[in-house]
Amino acid sequence: MKPTNTRPTIFDGQENPAIKRIYVNGRLYPFIRVPMREVALEPTRLSDGSLEQNEPVRIYDCSGSWGDTNFNRSLLEGLPKLRLDWILSRNDVEQYNGICKDRPESIKPYRAKPGRHATQMHYARKGIITPEMEFVAIRETLGLQEKLKAFAQTRRNIARNSLFFQHQGKSFGANLPDEITPEFVMQEVAAGRAIIPANINHPEAEPMIIGRKFLVKINANIGNSAIVSNVDEEVEKLLWAIKWGADTVMDLSTGKNIREIREWILRNSPVPIGTVPIYEALEKVDGHPEELTWDIFKETLIEQCEQGVDYFTIHSCVLLRFIPLTVNRVTGIVSRGGSIMAKWCLAHHQENFLYTHWDEICEILSAYDVAVSIGDGLRPGSIADANDEAQFAELKAQGELTLRAWEHDVQVINEGPGHIPMQLIYENMVNQIEWCHEAPFYTLGPLTTDIAPGYDHITSAIGAAMIGWFGTAMLCYVTPKEHLGLPDKKDVRDGVIAYKIAAHAADLAKGHPAAQYRDNALSKARFEFRWNDQFNLSFDPQTARLFHDETLPQESAKLSHFCSMCGPHFCSMKITEDVRKFARESGITEADALKKGMEEKSKEFIKKGKEIYTKL
Amino acid sequence: MKPTNTRPTIFDGQENPAIKRIYVNGRLYPFIRVPMREVALEPTRLSDGSLEQNEPVRIYDCSGSWGDTNFNRSLLEGLPKLRLDWILSRNDVEQYNGICKDRPESIKPYRAKPGRHATQMHYARKGIITPEMEFVAIRETLGLQEKLKAFAQTRRNIARNSLFFQHQGKSFGANLPDEITPEFVMQEVAAGRAIIPANINHPEAEPMIIGRKFLVKINANIGNSAIVSNVDEEVEKLLWAIKWGADTVMDLSTGKNIREIREWILRNSPVPIGTVPIYEALEKVDGHPEELTWDIFKETLIEQCEQGVDYFTIHSCVLLRFIPLTVNRVTGIVSRGGSIMAKWCLAHHQENFLYTHWDEICEILSAYDVAVSIGDGLRPGSIADANDEAQFAELKAQGELTLRAWEHDVQVINEGPGHIPMQLIYENMVNQIEWCHEAPFYTLGPLTTDIAPGYDHITSAIGAAMIGWFGTAMLCYVTPKEHLGLPDKKDVRDGVIAYKIAAHAADLAKGHPAAQYRDNALSKARFEFRWNDQFNLSFDPQTARLFHDETLPQESAKLSHFCSMCGPHFCSMKITEDVRKFARESGITEADALKKGMEEKSKEFIKKGKEIYTKL
Repeated sequence: MKPTNTRPTIFDGQENPAIKRIYVNGRLYPFIRVPMREVALEPTRLSDGSLEQNEPVRIYDCSGSWGDTNFNRSLLEGLPKLRLDWILSRNDVEQYNGICKDRPESIKPYRAKPGRHATQMHYARKGIITPEMEFVAIRETLGLQEKLKAFAQTRRNIARNSLFFQHQGKSFGANLPDEITPEFVMQEVAAGRAIIPANINHPEAEPMIIGRKFLVKINANIGNSAIVSNVDEEVEKLLWAIKWGADTVMDLSTGKNIREIREWILRNSPVPIGTVPIYEALEKVDGHPEELTWDIFKETLIEQCEQGVDYFTIHSCVLLRFIPLTVNRVTGIVSRGGSIMAKWCLAHHQENFLYTHWDEICEILSAYDVAVSIGDGLRPGSIADANDEAQFAELKAQGELTLRAWEHDVQVINEGPGHIPMQLIYENMVNQIEWCHEAPFYTLGPLTTDIAPGYDHITSAIGAAMIGWFGTAMLCYVTPKEHLGLPDKKDVRDGVIAYKIAAHAADLAKGHPAAQYRDNALSKARFEFRWNDQFNLSFDPQTARLFHDETLPQESAKLSHFCSMCGPHFCSMKITEDVRKFARESGITEADALKKGMEEKSKEFIKKGKEIYTKL
Repeated sequence: MKPTNTRPTIFDGQENPAIKRIYVNGRLYPFIRVPMREVALEPTRLSDGSLEQNEPVRIYDCSGSWGDTNFNRSLLEGLPKLRLDWILSRNDVEQYNGICKDRPESIKPYRAKPGRHATQMHYARKGIITPEMEFVAIRETLGLQEKLKAFAQTRRNIARNSLFFQHQGKSFGANLPDEITPEFVMQEVAAGRAIIPANINHPEAEPMIIGRKFLVKINANIGNSAIVSNVDEEVEKLLWAIKWGADTVMDLSTGKNIREIREWILRNSPVPIGTVPIYEALEKVDGHPEELTWDIFKETLIEQCEQGVDYFTIHSCVLLRFIPLTVNRVTGIVSRGGSIMAKWCLAHHQENFLYTHWDEICEILSAYDVAVSIGDGLRPGSIADANDEAQFAELKAQGELTLRAWEHDVQVINEGPGHIPMQLIYENMVNQIEWCHEAPFYTLGPLTTDIAPGYDHITSAIGAAMIGWFGTAMLCYVTPKEHLGLPDKKDVRDGVIAYKIAAHAADLAKGHPAAQYRDNALSKARFEFRWNDQFNLSFDPQTARLFHDETLPQESAKLSHFCSMCGPHFCSMKITEDVRKFARESGITEADALKKGMEEKSKEFIKKGKEIYTKL
């Protein structure tokens, strides 16, 4: 089973001369090339008719080589193995014959040499800065560390209309640094406060970091289901999700051909891929949870490690004693993985085998550097069930297993809910930080009300923005089809963008050093009626342009100094230009205003302005 | 200029036998009939096959008579004058020949008799409970006060799966009551903490209340612009907005025929209508702000009072000395009204005439009971400009004018921003509460990032939910077209629903006594696979049904115990049913579990469960 359409077309037809792919090189590791997007801006037209250049703006870009117009490989060839040399140069892995029988001979997986832990956490704890760590450091601040640092040191003195002005963040104890260095990345990974999901068998992936002191990341789910899907469709879903900005993608397939589909996803994915291995294990026992065994699960786990999955959701904390706590809930158990394990526990009246075999699981993961996302099988499925005993009992158990995974140098994140009304979100976050020892939190939403099916990307973006601000490191997206059906392409785009908004709003609020400058650039473009810049700097340039053109389709309208909302005579921005012109003519320069302070200057302006005006 | 299409069709074709219009009568005033929607639910099918009835759920409904299938009037006839008798029975108003020349002879406006203040605030301060006050009290808690109160008193002891279970709210000092009585409404209106916008010349409108201790309300903007629109279109926009749940509608028309269009909007609107009178005044001086005068404005104001506008946005706090504070902003002045007044102030080098004539304005408003929404002409138009000196200087002035309006018994709300990153929203709210003496706050969003044009209903719903929770009483919606173009019907629906979500999320978080029971009912329906109930209880039943049917169109799927997302074998809800059945068979009844406490019960369950299971 191979992709029939060998050339991805998702990124075609979007050539925009103002937007280009650039690469920033490493310093510790000069061979590192961190990809990003750069948007060239139009000049500002000053009132005297002269032009003032606007420097180009860099944008975080997780579309990998697919986002590079010079890249021409087919899906059958897959992405280049970016990290293979980095991995091999550490001399701690070996190739072997994998347990998976139906893979081609040529693809032999790697694993750590006996007794070694080939994980980023292991290296970080040894004080080693890996190329992966430098890569994410550059990526986080777009290679603008110097500018941002210089700015941060004078933050309070800089005028709001500087490109680098940023409000003071409020980070609830996260204490984001002004500068993100490779050393800092290493420290955070060593402490378990951040992870770099990077299976040694997925060298195609570009490193990215998930942690409370970094940009909030988002995950998009794809995957076929009982209603059939195929390789082409699933790979297209992957590319579509990363085109709009998904930082990781989870393949939640449950139907036929899970493994082949996953193979093609991994070989073509520049972002980390997550899975829920219990789904594939369940397929092996024809969908009967009670027939699951540790051996079947272990085999599945190793197969997926060999393929290159970067993180696994494992529902190891659905403990037998917690299940009765869900009986009087409104919505019981709503996690698929959670309900599978609950049924297994009840059927056997034994403790969850994922819990009892935790150390063996961690030993396997540490040999491939697969991160574990400890699942929240008992998450609330309704506002009523939020923050109940079942949920919090499981969260404490997640904390216990976090510590044990760290003993094996396994990178850990914890999954969280779900459905939570706003006033209970903060409690969730602080409990997770405390009980799970600052391991990164990874939440689904949360949805802040249950009464808007069809719009749950919005009910949940509200909760996601808030919990991201409070400290959640990664947000799992929710599409408009949640609770109703399978998302189509439009739903995936709407879900990803709603979550990019939530994550970015959280970055601004936390005070991530590189967060606000894109907002500043777009707002300035908006105020100066640089319509194309406004579109190009947005999350979805096509939709922004389309919406504008619905009312004013003429190309000339892109240059006009008004928009369709108020028309030319009613334009507040036009009137403000008059006010500014007036200020300039009164001799108030920006530097001057900054030096003397706004308050004093405004008094002076009134005085001067009055004189000048009466002369006119 | 009259509506050509005399029969509104917006509400046609939605006959749903499960959803009906009901009316709840007053007690103090038995002639009061408060409209609401009632959704009949399907029974719960228990595991033994028997059926358990679910009581119908009431829903707040602001569609007025248009939402009553028995109502057959045309747009030309207009709505019945619901409040006319209430108004006349107070004996404090008189009919007179209005100043508006082109209205039909038959329409003579009312105003207060000389020396009288015909405002709800005036009555409240006198200790009078008006029919309007009882109407809103019933409306706020859906006529379920007794049930809610009884529940509230035992809140902490009630199981989460009770229909009336509600989490403890967190209200930042608002201290919402368990019960909303007519007396309580009177007290809040008297204190200026809430308003009931209800022009005596708009007797068609149904009373509703705007205040921090009540349900958060939302406003939708309509109105033509330079790009022409007509009466039919504007009235259709009104009906469309209230169909989806707009609590008030602002007519922001700026083009031709403003007055005629407004007349038909008012005669057909069951919700309060707001305007920005300076827009019409500006039309009278052909769009030249510097030619505006107090006399022109005053005439416009009185004309609109006579027509029945319920609240006016007046940009009276854009003071001359504040204007220079905007010079170094990224986005200067972005309010239309604000920029008009700024230009007037600069052109004349005089103080804003709306400020200098404030007492005269209030005298006029108190004669008609028009509420004033003190505009925020200097609100920030970008993340960078949030919470700056200009914004807060104006907010303090809004507080000053609030006190002066109250001297005239004029009901007041204050407008707020705009664009604010999440970490600065709370500061906005507490400053407004403190500086404006707890007058209700009415904000536009705020947008929490600038980089998602095309999706600003979402960037702003995040901020709106938060500021609503913190205390904002009414949220002005933002559509996906914000910053780009004029909203079409889909945009209006998307904007209204995004804001219904934000407002409801805020109601849940504040702990409004009637907030959570609809969530509980929908969640229970979801868990029990009562698909039709899930659709009918949602904000947008049509879209929810459509999304479901895209994957599973067969009518039988509405009865099936799984959905397309996981399919029949993977359904966590199905598995939970097994768990529950197991619990029931173990003899654990709900009442029992509640009595003995969940923790203890769960241990017992494991023990009993084990025995029972081994017998099988």
